Amino acid sequence: MSHPQTLFAQTTFHGPSLLQRRRTTIARTTVKAQLRKLKETGRYRCFSLERQPIYDDDDDARRWPCPAPMYWDSDVAKWIEGACYLLAEEYDAEVDAAVRELAEMIRGAQQEDGYLNTWFTIVDPRGRWSNVRDQHELYNAGHLIEAALAHSNYYKNNRLIEPIEKYVKMISTVIGPGPHQKHAYPGHPETELALLRLYAATGNQDAYALAQYFIEERGNPKGQDGMHYYDWERKQRGDSPWKRPDSYQMHDSHWYNQAHAPILEQTSVEGHAVRAMYLYTGVADLLCLDKLGLKAYARKNEYFGALSRLWNNMVDKKMYLTGGIGSMWQWEGFGIDYFLPQGSDEGGCYNETCASIGVIMLAERLLHLDLNSKYADVMELCLYNAVMTGVSLEGTAFTYVNQLASSGADRSRREDWFDTSCCPPNVMRLFGSLGGYLWDYGGGGKDAYVNVHLYSTAKVAFQVEDDQQIVTLEQKSNWPWEGNVLFQLHAPRPVSVTLRLRIPSWARRGYTLTPSYKAARLEKGYLVLPPAYTEANRAFSIQIEGFKPRFVSPHPYTNQGTLALARGPLIYCVEDVDNPWEEDHFRNVGIQSDAGEVVEHDEVIDQLGEGYVALRAVGWVRSITDDRSNCCYASEEEEEEEAGLEPGSSLPHAVMTEEKKEKRDLTFIPYYLRANRRGKGHMRVGLLRK
Amino acid sequence: MSHPQTLFAQTTFHGPSLLQRRRTTIARTTVKAQLRKLKETGRYRCFSLERQPIYDDDDDARRWPCPAPMYWDSDVAKWIEGACYLLAEEYDAEVDAAVRELAEMIRGAQQEDGYLNTWFTIVDPRGRWSNVRDQHELYNAGHLIEAALAHSNYYKNNRLIEPIEKYVKMISTVIGPGPHQKHAYPGHPETELALLRLYAATGNQDAYALAQYFIEERGNPKGQDGMHYYDWERKQRGDSPWKRPDSYQMHDSHWYNQAHAPILEQTSVEGHAVRAMYLYTGVADLLCLDKLGLKAYARKNEYFGALSRLWNNMVDKKMYLTGGIGSMWQWEGFGIDYFLPQGSDEGGCYNETCASIGVIMLAERLLHLDLNSKYADVMELCLYNAVMTGVSLEGTAFTYVNQLASSGADRSRREDWFDTSCCPPNVMRLFGSLGGYLWDYGGGGKDAYVNVHLYSTAKVAFQVEDDQQIVTLEQKSNWPWEGNVLFQLHAPRPVSVTLRLRIPSWARRGYTLTPSYKAARLEKGYLVLPPAYTEANRAFSIQIEGFKPRFVSPHPYTNQGTLALARGPLIYCVEDVDNPWEEDHFRNVGIQSDAGEVVEHDEVIDQLGEGYVALRAVGWVRSITDDRSNCCYASEEEEEEEAGLEPGSSLPHAVMTEEKKEKRDLTFIPYYLRANRRGKGHMRVGLLRK
Repeated sequence: MSHPQTLFAQTTFHGPSLLQRRRTTIARTTVKAQLRKLKETGRYRCFSLERQPIYDDDDDARRWPCPAPMYWDSDVAKWIEGACYLLAEEYDAEVDAAVRELAEMIRGAQQEDGYLNTWFTIVDPRGRWSNVRDQHELYNAGHLIEAALAHSNYYKNNRLIEPIEKYVKMISTVIGPGPHQKHAYPGHPETELALLRLYAATGNQDAYALAQYFIEERGNPKGQDGMHYYDWERKQRGDSPWKRPDSYQMHDSHWYNQAHAPILEQTSVEGHAVRAMYLYTGVADLLCLDKLGLKAYARKNEYFGALSRLWNNMVDKKMYLTGGIGSMWQWEGFGIDYFLPQGSDEGGCYNETCASIGVIMLAERLLHLDLNSKYADVMELCLYNAVMTGVSLEGTAFTYVNQLASSGADRSRREDWFDTSCCPPNVMRLFGSLGGYLWDYGGGGKDAYVNVHLYSTAKVAFQVEDDQQIVTLEQKSNWPWEGNVLFQLHAPRPVSVTLRLRIPSWARRGYTLTPSYKAARLEKGYLVLPPAYTEANRAFSIQIEGFKPRFVSPHPYTNQGTLALARGPLIYCVEDVDNPWEEDHFRNVGIQSDAGEVVEHDEVIDQLGEGYVALRAVGWVRSITDDRSNCCYASEEEEEEEAGLEPGSSLPHAVMTEEKKEKRDLTFIPYYLRANRRGKGHMRVGLLRK
Repeated sequence: MSHPQTLFAQTTFHGPSLLQRRRTTIARTTVKAQLRKLKETGRYRCFSLERQPIYDDDDDARRWPCPAPMYWDSDVAKWIEGACYLLAEEYDAEVDAAVRELAEMIRGAQQEDGYLNTWFTIVDPRGRWSNVRDQHELYNAGHLIEAALAHSNYYKNNRLIEPIEKYVKMISTVIGPGPHQKHAYPGHPETELALLRLYAATGNQDAYALAQYFIEERGNPKGQDGMHYYDWERKQRGDSPWKRPDSYQMHDSHWYNQAHAPILEQTSVEGHAVRAMYLYTGVADLLCLDKLGLKAYARKNEYFGALSRLWNNMVDKKMYLTGGIGSMWQWEGFGIDYFLPQGSDEGGCYNETCASIGVIMLAERLLHLDLNSKYADVMELCLYNAVMTGVSLEGTAFTYVNQLASSGADRSRREDWFDTSCCPPNVMRLFGSLGGYLWDYGGGGKDAYVNVHLYSTAKVAFQVEDDQQIVTLEQKSNWPWEGNVLFQLHAPRPVSVTLRLRIPSWARRGYTLTPSYKAARLEKGYLVLPPAYTEANRAFSIQIEGFKPRFVSPHPYTNQGTLALARGPLIYCVEDVDNPWEEDHFRNVGIQSDAGEVVEHDEVIDQLGEGYVALRAVGWVRSITDDRSNCCYASEEEEEEEAGLEPGSSLPHAVMTEEKKEKRDLTFIPYYLRANRRGKGHMRVGLLRK
């Protein structure tokens, strides 16, 4: 199967690169730092089914309908999953022992009927399946499935997969299309993609059927007893329609969890961003299984049409320059088209780390369905910006929200943990399986292929079909700092390999292939090098242009009126550490695209040895004429005017404000490096544009 | 007393003016059109206590917690109030008979214990006082008080004031500081200002005490049994904290009705805009009563400090160019500072007509406390723009929401009624009592004064204290089209009159007084003409400059990047009727302040004979380079590039978008005239600024 979570081990990051360095940090430091947090907070012991004080905590109970321990299962599961990926990279006895112990605790937590959820076993046994909309029961199950898959891959045993398959069977009896079954689907999707991965790995038919049911049933307005399932479920609980979680804008906001309409009728991405990405990743995987011949799916074209519409709506109208998604904090998700303020004090910006990880997962699936560089471009954008900014260089501190501008209320900074701690282990999972995102490959001895999505220094070794030999492809580059990538193909025996190399959309000045090849075609953003070329040139290089700093801007309909700097795949920001004169989060700082050269400087963050290219440019600071002086007319006599001047508000800005601009040297750093060097937490990506 | 609702009759609009024409239309047409609507919808009969089908209507019941008939009492009361004001202007036997009949029905609806509310008598007798937060019980009472005051002024009898005073007495037993009383205050303020007007008119001590209690108790975090009253009340009802009306963003959003903190601790205007304005008007009136010597109030300075802070926050950071307030549709109220998008498709803009009427009411009260033109400037801005745009030229169609830009979902148009129909009768009330807003006046024979806030053609006649004579002041002007105002003062016997004339803040080139007066002082935006001048010049004129078109813009922090045209007190807009080439709500239309002269044209709306000054200027239309073409790099060979072009989304706007600008002639009309000439409903105030 083609899942990165399975195939990543075929790729090694065998030389220095930014990705390798970050991955090593995560393998060596983050895994253990998070293990400590799991232990400190009680999560580590939750599957022991011991009652912990937090279960009775009033403060926590105020987080109705979802107190934090309700999704502790998933925190543990994600850590197990990430740890299993990373143990392969960096063995650690403590981590190994913890994974084994957790697996045994999970086994022990399973009830006789197969049920496996700590909250609804310890705290609220009667609440089972009473609120699948809000209470993360199926979401937890999904993460357990993913943990079990990673565990069985690493340990080559079925200690975890066995109870999980039992649980899936049990869920399949409770939920489904039958007259005595609940016509339910997860309020927080993710179970779909997990079930389909389980099917791909084990052939578990229950898993496939359940995932398909979740996807097709979702948003059915008359799913149960002629009602929307979530309305029916609410009625069963005896809840008023107006009793709703804080994340629901209105009493009937089923769009919060993408259940306002069947998926095929959805035309724009709505609601909670992580849920949306996980859901559509599951849908895409259903279509991938069809494409790979693992399970035919008749409605693939309809669903692919829906995914295309939703992807385009998201990228064209609801995504930030950094690859962040979700402008609305209340529902951690999407606002209306083109509503992309940079920070809280401008009305929004959430950009949860997990959401952009979800974009990466979705893009990866879509690339299997439609090899188009537009998906890989966004995948890379998210990886190097919205996601990588989510973990500190030391690997011990994280962000949850990734705004494009800080403000007094929301400084640019990191935390070592969160009550809702989905993001830290999610970063672990992604970097653990990162090799699987660089490329996809396969085919037989006569038509083997490698589609290269991401450049770095890495090597993949895979067995071609109909031929026992192992083909390896190696790439070497100083990406994302420089655009030259050396490729080396190895095959013991003759093999016909087609290589497809992504030409990023920002590579406006194109690329240079060496040795050159007149007949090279460009297909949907990929440079196709047919066997004729790869046979003649086992080693070759491509130089991607576009590593000069460039100005980028959000769509004019965003009303942002800003410019930002980018270089290669990296989006830049200004931070007070480099621009210590700044006192107001760069709110009044601007830049002009024609104000002279943007200068590059090689820099290193001292204690950490992290090298990067800083940018310097001349910008300006605006000073706004004080409102009050605008309120006053020119009277006939100076003295009168002075006497008449009265501080206080005038008309509501109803006078054309004067702005003065003063030149200022600005230093920019890559957005992913923000909040790594102390400072006051002032940061901004898009600066005023004149 | 100084209330415009009492004093308006001392002012006559005795010559042609825009205000007079609108007032006449409202008196002749609007009053009767709304009476028809009251009858058609069942409101007219609600005080008969007959059960009507809508009370059992499921659709209506979905409007929990406030189905429309729950505030029918207030709709009727506001109509009575407005009708009583306007009968004085334009007697009509049908209207007269209706008011009399309604008064008798209201008398008949009063319960033995004094209770007087139709919903809680007919539909839900057990629900009395169970949800003063949401269910408009006290709000309805307030409007009944105001109706009764208007009724007793016009009819000189106590048919309505009598039952209402009985009701106030009853409320005073239920609510108050006593150990067995409810420590409640209205979820929708307005009762406060009504009670204080009742006190001013009748000396009713219960009314004063109740209003003071409402104001001082509001937002007390431990008001009842150690809990916030609204939490206590909710708990009494057995409601979950998470059961909340759609207008509440979060489960504890007491800011929705300005109850998140005691008024003295409130530093920014928050929540529902109409509620806020009515509340602060009540507070200001408490201080006015002190200032006028009608009732001493010890905490006046503290409360005036709070009002000043709140006013400044509103005008500086939360008010639109038109005087509209409330950018958030969900709670019909205030967003964060500087969040002022022009329309729904940009993320907001509500600007309820009633809210700006509330601003006018608040400004009028504040002018008594602090004679500063900043209040009168905003009062005039609201009157001629945000409010006057709320009624059609024929007087039969209305707006509720007054956005600054239309969109596909929210075209610029009017309706003849609304389910929640507060705005139409509110316009009636305001225009009925309009004379009372033009000026305030008083004082004795030696120190009489008139402070002129608004210019028009009108005459006020009032009796000076300590002297039986009637002084009259007449003003004549073609305001808001021209700035020349002729004044004529009449007094049978010698009297010392000080006149203070507002110099609007937009009159940047000042004013010319004729005959001139070297010693004239300017105090807080008012030109002070002492008795020495007014005795020597019983007739004089002032020419206010500022009637050349000028560009105005919202504060830079709004991120709007727009310019609008204004002339005198009027804000202008573009409409598709004059610019029929427009197809997208002027979203891509811009203007430059240095692009040549703005030309004035006298125009008339044919069927209605409404004259106005149109503006013409050269603007531009932007065409945005299609996103898709931005996604593509320049490849080495043309053919390849073409083959490689793939429609679909690129990176998320992460390329600097190219814009082309094409010149275009634009015609502007005053915002208050929008949606009077059919058309497609495309309209915009602020155009792009380059």
